Order: sequence, then structure tokens, then C-alpha cells
Amino acid sequence: MAKSLFFPGNVPLRLSQIPRSISSHNQTNSSLPLSSTTKQFRHGFQRILHFDAKSTRSLCTKAVISEIPNQRYYPKVGAHSTGPIPASQLLQVVETAAKTGAQVVMEAVNKPQNISYKGVTDLVTDTDKMSEAAILDVVNKNFGDHLVLGEEGGIIGDSSSDYLWCIDPLDGTTNFAHCYPSFAVSVGVLFRGKPAAASVVEFVGGPMCWNTRTFSATAGGGAFCNGKKIHVSQTEQVERSLLVTGFGYEHDHAWATNMELFKEFTDISRGVRRLGAAAVDMCHVALGIVEAYWEYRLKPWDMAAGVLIVEEAGGAITRMDGGKFCVFDRSVLVSNGALHARLLEKIAPATEKLKSENFEHSLWFKPENYTTDL
Amino acid sequence: MAKSLFFPGNVPLRLSQIPRSISSHNQTNSSLPLSSTTKQFRHGFQRILHFDAKSTRSLCTKAVISEIPNQRYYPKVGAHSTGPIPASQLLQVVETAAKTGAQVVMEAVNKPQNISYKGVTDLVTDTDKMSEAAILDVVNKNFGDHLVLGEEGGIIGDSSSDYLWCIDPLDGTTNFAHCYPSFAVSVGVLFRGKPAAASVVEFVGGPMCWNTRTFSATAGGGAFCNGKKIHVSQTEQVERSLLVTGFGYEHDHAWATNMELFKEFTDISRGVRRLGAAAVDMCHVALGIVEAYWEYRLKPWDMAAGVLIVEEAGGAITRMDGGKFCVFDRSVLVSNGALHARLLEKIAPATEKLKSENFEHSLWFKPENYTTDL
Repeated sequence: MAKSLFFPGNVPLRLSQIPRSISSHNQTNSSLPLSSTTKQFRHGFQRILHFDAKSTRSLCTKAVISEIPNQRYYPKVGAHSTGPIPASQLLQVVETAAKTGAQVVMEAVNKPQNISYKGVTDLVTDTDKMSEAAILDVVNKNFGDHLVLGEEGGIIGDSSSDYLWCIDPLDGTTNFAHCYPSFAVSVGVLFRGKPAAASVVEFVGGPMCWNTRTFSATAGGGAFCNGKKIHVSQTEQVERSLLVTGFGYEHDHAWATNMELFKEFTDISRGVRRLGAAAVDMCHVALGIVEAYWEYRLKPWDMAAGVLIVEEAGGAITRMDGGKFCVFDRSVLVSNGALHARLLEKIAPATEKLKSENFEHSLWFKPENYTTDL
Repeated sequence: MAKSLFFPGNVPLRLSQIPRSISSHNQTNSSLPLSSTTKQFRHGFQRILHFDAKSTRSLCTKAVISEIPNQRYYPKVGAHSTGPIPASQLLQVVETAAKTGAQVVMEAVNKPQNISYKGVTDLVTDTDKMSEAAILDVVNKNFGDHLVLGEEGGIIGDSSSDYLWCIDPLDGTTNFAHCYPSFAVSVGVLFRGKPAAASVVEFVGGPMCWNTRTFSATAGGGAFCNGKKIHVSQTEQVERSLLVTGFGYEHDHAWATNMELFKEFTDISRGVRRLGAAAVDMCHVALGIVEAYWEYRLKPWDMAAGVLIVEEAGGAITRMDGGKFCVFDRSVLVSNGALHARLLEKIAPATEKLKSENFEHSLWFKPENYTTDL
């Protein structure tokens, strides 16, 4: 495959991967003059489409490109299957686990919190720990031989397992401590390093209106919210998009770079929201109410469930440098797919700057000895 | 009164305004050495406390200061009374107006929107216009001789009226167009230029979880959410606070300055949220789930209801330069009161910079001929 023209990571679309019906339609589309199709093709796509040397070098019009399911442009992040455990069984347990954690959180909402600190502003409450314990209990009772990575408890279990549960027992603890929506319980289970099933219970509304909304997905099985199939938005233009991002606790080069991106995208889009819970923000992309979300320095428990839900809702996921994403990476861009190339194009200068500051986008949180297909 | 030591606006606390019981307590408090009280006094308060030349120049300790209701430090923004119309009657009509608008909005939620643009990213929908018409109908039926200022329709009615209704039929239109919570219907009525009664219906939750929460207040009558009395938070430290801000459609010096403030406060607080609806953000301060909110270039319909609800919930309101606020001004800082001085201190350099760029914090949206007590 040809190397990327611009982004350092692999973005492995080859023309041979485009469904035949599309490329043949494209070849016979004579209604657009060549100069026009070239221009449209270049607007946002030239940097990530790569052509197999043996393929016909036909040009894609924007109209044709939009017929291709969005995520086809980017490597799948989800597992090929749920492995030896049937999808329905894995989904049932992952949902039970998330809902069990959510029950603990709901009981604690509006009550005074016993807050301690991981850093000056990085909170942890008793509820985080109690929710994780309740989730662990569900996982252990069902799959005692699986490996578990919890935000609070770290790595537990058998590292020879093909399954790794990534648990955020309370994503958005700061919001929770302030009774500020939104926050969530996020549980994702990987099969050989890739998300196979996911469930996120989002807390919405706030005082006098608390409610929850449950997102779930299995690899290849679609994404659902409260049992209804969901889909990302179809918006293709940055200036018509609503975006959301997050800022971590470590105020380093990546943090400062994201401040610049926040400013730039606030300037050119309908707005950039800052809500404070990664899993929630990703589920909002899947639900189609925002077009994209990005953040640096997230951990596997922040992302494992959310990225599968977005992908299964028709969205696209890469690292912030456009490289192939896995849940152990340290940056993520999720979008409705239709916007992904344009966003990467805008982000590229920031990526170059971070590279010059030796920021690594690659693996940083993979448990030792855990075997993957990555 | 002595002139401000730092902020260009008037911050008219005089020691004579501090309740006698507090100042006498202060004078007899001998448990703290002078150096200690001086230091505590200086931390956040030295720049806005002004002493009447004839007053005893006693020093306030932090402990004593915290006993004073927070908003006493800042000029009241609410009216002295609701005028010749009884508070209960004005409240009933303002609530009916807001809820009537909210009914129009709720019917339109989740349905495709006919969007038009005031600017490249400044949306307006048919729902904005229909909600405003429904609200106007309620106002006209009850008080046909009052003046009305609507976001969509502008100024209507008799400018000799003492009452001015400030109507935002759909605050957070961008969020609404994306089905992204939150947005609101905001109705505030002024008596001779100052908020006398207010109601905000906030839409929360989003797809599959839509719900509303109704805030209301009358001058001197307290603030309520869904009929329950509400109060701002008691947090006194910036590093323990959750903040929220907004960015307008005009990307001028004030916009760029607020980007810098967003970065600075994200760095030193628990986080700065960016939700996208001014009335909602202010009601969240009143509800005690965030500590403060600020924005430049808001209009009277964005602020008239929210500032009264915050003040009646125990919070403080000034312009961003610390000056006395009125709803026709072009910047606002609302807080739980306990934090207000510290926030102004942090904001001061930005204020100085904006002054050097000729940004005016003062009146910009007062209807001609409308008589006020400002």
C-alpha cells in the first residue's frame, strides 16, 4: 500500500476497498467536468485516500464519496468477533455490569460526597470505588478468568486471557461531585485488544431531573440507546458542525495544543462544547447530537466502550494524528465519519507541532503480557 | 465614597453598609493577630472593599466576611419592588409566559428544523419565532400596555411603560437545532430598568430523556426551581470551583480575551464548562452546581431572568470589570458570591487589556425613551 502523503499514521484506504458499485458508478459519471471533480475530491480527501498501484485511478466526486459508509475510510477499531463467547451473552453481562455500577452512582447522587484527590483538581469519591467494586463483582461472577483494568483498582486477573474489561466506574467524577450533568458508568470489553462489547450508562438532567440513558454495542452488531438503534449525524461541513472536546489534568504540551484547537474550532464551527466526561461525549457523537469529539491523554477505561459505540453507530475513529487507533493510544478523534478528513486536515498543524515537542500518539497504557491482534 | 483602587466600575461597598453586628464583632475579635487578619483580608478582598472616610477602619477577617450574605458586597441588580403590580401576579404571568414558550419548543424537539442564519454560525429556527409569538400573546393579554424586547421581534409597545419584558424565546438555538441539551426559554420583566420577576424553563436530557426544569424568582422573594427554594454553592476557593462560560458569534477582542480566560481558569479550577445557553448557565449557578459564569456581549434577553434568579439564590452579579451591573450592559460575571472577589482579581489583567483595546463594558442595548432608575 502507498504510504500516507501527510499523516504519520497509517490510514489504509485503498481503492480496492471501495465497493465495486461505487467505483464503477464513479467511472461512468460523466456529468461533472474533470476540473470540478478534482476540486471536490481535493477538498478534504486528498490527504487520506491512497490508491493501490494496480487500481484504476478514477476520481471520486463528493456525491459519490458520501454514498460510501463513512467508517470504511478508516481502520475498524472493533474486534472481528466477540470470540468464543456469543455476542448476546457478552452484551448481557456488559450491560448488567454498567447498570449495576450506575445503581451505586444513582444512590449517591445529590448526597454529600467524601472527596479525595489524585492531584490538585483530580477528584475521586467513595462512589467511584463502590461503583467499581460492584462492576467487578458482576464480571467476576460471570467470567472469573478474564483480565480487568479498572480506573481505581488497576489491573486484576489472568493476563493470559483474550478478554480485557476496561472499567470506568464513574467517568466525569468532577461533574458528579458538583451534581452537574453529565457523567457516566462506562464498561467496555476487549477481545484480543479490540472492543467487542460496550455499555455506557449516562446520567442526565441534574438536580430535580435525574435520569439515565443506556448506550450499548457489540462488534458488528450495531449501536443502541435505550434499546433503539442509533446513528451518527450526516453533517459534512465543519461550519455546520457542533463539536466537543476535553482537557485532562496534566497541563502539558498536548493540553496547551488542545486549547489552540478549542479556539480554532470555536471560530470555524457552530461551537465546541466542553462537558467533562469522555464516554458521554463519545456517546453523543453516536447519538448524532454532536458531530465529533477529540481529546489527548485518555486512558483505555475512558475510551473502550465509547469508541465501539461510535463505530457501530456509523462513525469513524482515529488517533489525533490520523493514525490507526487502538484503546491503548494516547489520543482519539471520533466523528460522524463524513467530517473526519476535514477535521484531520485542520488538526494537522497542531499534530506537527506536538511531534516537534516529542508528544507520542502511540501506545501508553497496554497491560503487560496481554496478547492482542493489534 | 472612595474611588475604586483598581476596577474601573463602581463597587460601592462601604463599611457603613456592613451590618452593625458584624462590624462590632469584628472590632472585638482579638483572637487573631493583626498581621494574620491583614493577610486574610488582602487575599481577594483588598481591591474591592472601599471604606467611608468617616467609618471605623476596622479589618475584616475571612471568618467574619463569610458571615455576611454574599451579595451584600455588590450592588443589587434586582428591582426594589415589583412596582404597582403585586409580585405574585407578575410571577404568575412571567411563569405562564415562559411555560407557554416552552410548550412550543417541546413540540418541536426532535423534529427536523427549518434553520436560517443571522450570521455564518448564528442560527435561528421557526421555533424561535413561534415561541416568541406565543410568549408575546401571554404578555399582551395580561399587560397590553407594557414594553417588550424580544430577541426575534425587537422592541414592541409603549416606551413610557415602567415595565420592560425581556424575552429569549429559545436561548441556545444551536443546541436545540442539534437536539443537544441544554437550551431554555427565558422571560424576565424589568421595573424601571431592574429585574422584578423572572422565569427560565430549561430543557435537559436530550433524545430519549427530554425533560424540563423551571426556575423562577421575584425581586426580594427568593429563587425557586420546580417550586423548591434554591441556593448558590458555598465554595470559596477557585481551585475547588466548577465554572462555565460562553463565546458569542462576534469574534472580536472580547472573544479572544475570553479564550485566554477559558485557558487560565481551566488551568486553576476544577474545570470550565461550555454548554452554550446563557440563561441555563446562570440558573446552574443559582442551583449551586457550578460556582460562576461569565460572558461578554450578551443581550438583555439573555440576562434579565438569569441574573435575578442568581441574585435571589444568594449569588453576586457584576460586570466583568467589577462595575455595577445592569441588564443593558455588555458583560456579566455571576457567581456564588463567596468567589466573586477572587474571580475579579484573576480577571483584572484581561479587563485592563480590553480597556486598552477600547472595549466598553457599559450600556449598549437600552431601548430609547425607556425610563429607568439605573
